[in-house]
Amino acid sequence: MSDPIVHEKIQQASEILKEKGIDAWLIFVRESAAMADPTLEMILGTGCTWQSAFFITADGKTVAIVGSLDAANIEGTGNYAEIIGYTASIRDDLTRTLRKIDPKQIAINYSTNDYMSDGLTHGMYLLLQGYLKNTPYADRLVSSEAVVNSLRGRKSPTELARIGEAVRITEEIYDKVTGFLRPGQTEKEIAAFIKKEFDTYGVGPAWDPVMCPSVFTGPETAGAHFGPTDRKTEKGHIINMDFGVKKDGYCSDMQRTWYFLRDGETKAPAHVQKGFDVLRDSIQLAAKAIKPGMAGWEIDKAARDHIVQNGFEEYPHALGHQVGRLAHDGGGLLAPRWDRYGDLPFQPIEVGQVYTLEPRLTVEGHGVVTMEEMIVVKENGAEFLSHPQMELWLIG
Amino acid sequence: MSDPIVHEKIQQASEILKEKGIDAWLIFVRESAAMADPTLEMILGTGCTWQSAFFITADGKTVAIVGSLDAANIEGTGNYAEIIGYTASIRDDLTRTLRKIDPKQIAINYSTNDYMSDGLTHGMYLLLQGYLKNTPYADRLVSSEAVVNSLRGRKSPTELARIGEAVRITEEIYDKVTGFLRPGQTEKEIAAFIKKEFDTYGVGPAWDPVMCPSVFTGPETAGAHFGPTDRKTEKGHIINMDFGVKKDGYCSDMQRTWYFLRDGETKAPAHVQKGFDVLRDSIQLAAKAIKPGMAGWEIDKAARDHIVQNGFEEYPHALGHQVGRLAHDGGGLLAPRWDRYGDLPFQPIEVGQVYTLEPRLTVEGHGVVTMEEMIVVKENGAEFLSHPQMELWLIG
Repeated sequence: MSDPIVHEKIQQASEILKEKGIDAWLIFVRESAAMADPTLEMILGTGCTWQSAFFITADGKTVAIVGSLDAANIEGTGNYAEIIGYTASIRDDLTRTLRKIDPKQIAINYSTNDYMSDGLTHGMYLLLQGYLKNTPYADRLVSSEAVVNSLRGRKSPTELARIGEAVRITEEIYDKVTGFLRPGQTEKEIAAFIKKEFDTYGVGPAWDPVMCPSVFTGPETAGAHFGPTDRKTEKGHIINMDFGVKKDGYCSDMQRTWYFLRDGETKAPAHVQKGFDVLRDSIQLAAKAIKPGMAGWEIDKAARDHIVQNGFEEYPHALGHQVGRLAHDGGGLLAPRWDRYGDLPFQPIEVGQVYTLEPRLTVEGHGVVTMEEMIVVKENGAEFLSHPQMELWLIG
Repeated sequence: MSDPIVHEKIQQASEILKEKGIDAWLIFVRESAAMADPTLEMILGTGCTWQSAFFITADGKTVAIVGSLDAANIEGTGNYAEIIGYTASIRDDLTRTLRKIDPKQIAINYSTNDYMSDGLTHGMYLLLQGYLKNTPYADRLVSSEAVVNSLRGRKSPTELARIGEAVRITEEIYDKVTGFLRPGQTEKEIAAFIKKEFDTYGVGPAWDPVMCPSVFTGPETAGAHFGPTDRKTEKGHIINMDFGVKKDGYCSDMQRTWYFLRDGETKAPAHVQKGFDVLRDSIQLAAKAIKPGMAGWEIDKAARDHIVQNGFEEYPHALGHQVGRLAHDGGGLLAPRWDRYGDLPFQPIEVGQVYTLEPRLTVEGHGVVTMEEMIVVKENGAEFLSHPQMELWLIG
């Protein structure tokens, strides 16, 4: 049996197709062990080997056309009502099934904007075009981006419960880290402490273990997306960390910031404290700004403007991304309207989506202040899934 | 530091580009955590987040254009001589780099035949076309299939040593399984025994743990590509198993067959023994047929013909696939000339490639006989990496 969430997501997919006025969604894949379309784990819950076509329709039909040796395994998931196994070529079963469904529009997984909706490789696209040649369906292919974004973004109660549990574990580990921190530790030592806690809780890292956890202490750190180094914590350093855990297939992604008191200090220097306060408030402003239907860039702007207006440099990335089966779960982003983000900052915020809020700023001579909170979008606005860090944590 | 094999493979890629008369290879990817182009682990050895372009040229240049936050991490691998970090858009750095290299042909990762050469998504292909519009380079894109196949297929001595170690561990575990087997065990119990051995040896399964190991006992089993069930071993059953291990990033993939003696039997019934002998001999015939330069289908035919001529039904799959970082490592196949295999059965066999030989046949009323051996192609022909199973193993 596959994860029961797969069955929920397939039903949700039908509803979303109906809502968007698209008759059918075709997921066309092969050799998922080599490179799996990221929608597969939502709508299949296992792998496949040969060229495989999974149809979900707006009126609730599910058809899987798979290599004969895969058929029993796919049948075993219980997720597809009709399963067709082929031996020599998928072509005939594919076109026959399309004629039966006869969709006016067929959503397929390609997107220039959203990597989560872009699981169809270019070679597979060419193959599909070849199979559909001389049928009416070659001209009916559309991007599945809107379908995938809503399906991935709108979390079911079961999904939210799993994410909530990942957040809870992450916060417990951060509490333990606070008790562990001392001046003179290397970033690597601190990361090793956190990894041991992953084992204690029986969870995996939410992304590449080389960079999860990440630990950055003091001024002139390596920059984000870099593994912990032999650099040592020192009095006067700001230290920040970034990690998430994966539990029952769902992730958290959170950052926290501490300050190492210098001898004689009982609180952080004024400009460090100001950096912290500005960052904390920018997160609260962004959270308050969120309403379903707004564009992601409007939320990013709320945090970004506050930081710049207070004399700090703007952060060179998005305010936040969605979280789900992956820490970077794709779809609409709380991002500035920069070329590299394509149309993602323009997508409407939807009820049920889970976002991070993770601005950053540099306090010259001390380090980088960055907190990353997690929220879920409700009818009335954002609700925090994490307990936001409201005070700068002091180590002394 | 990334795995030293990455550096070896990048140098080998330059040589292969020169040999094939292609000036440059461009690997164009994003968010490798969501879906990683399978060539990335060969030529990068870490992940990347934003749209990223990796150039390897026939004259030995290496250029990485990556998101600014990824730059330090990519630099840390030591694999790219020039690293360019961008913030807003990759476009300018990408076209500027292309003008500097000025390649007549640019290999990119798409292929209708080979999933290992098909890591470029359709959305990324469209983005690339957009960036190259109004440059001379849009018309110079060619499939990297020939480059990737040779690069992936031609194993270095370091790679062969790692595969050899995975094979050695697999054979040791199969020996232990022979001592463990009894009538009345479920397939799941046997699989659990093997999984415990994975832990003992500190290795992972070579593919999806739901189906690695696979265990099939008796007639009318679930068919290949299916996880172990509650079906019990019985006297008179043929049982076969399929698993591989992953050790230091490289895989094995092997199958073995046993027979459960009935009360009073001291050897297998004649038709079971004949099935075993025919299958064993078909593997030896195929191994002897292999010479560099031959097409894969010719090798498949040697085994297939022998089985059919001896009155058994032909197997509904390829004789063998390549093995490396993945159990199904892509590239040329020892496969019949069926539509679904595209041009893979026609690709020439090259020195340094590692293949499985895995025919199968059904003995009515008893079960499926299948052995899977592993060979490496040398100048003079095939050399076994596994110790082929030459006798039917009897449990009684």
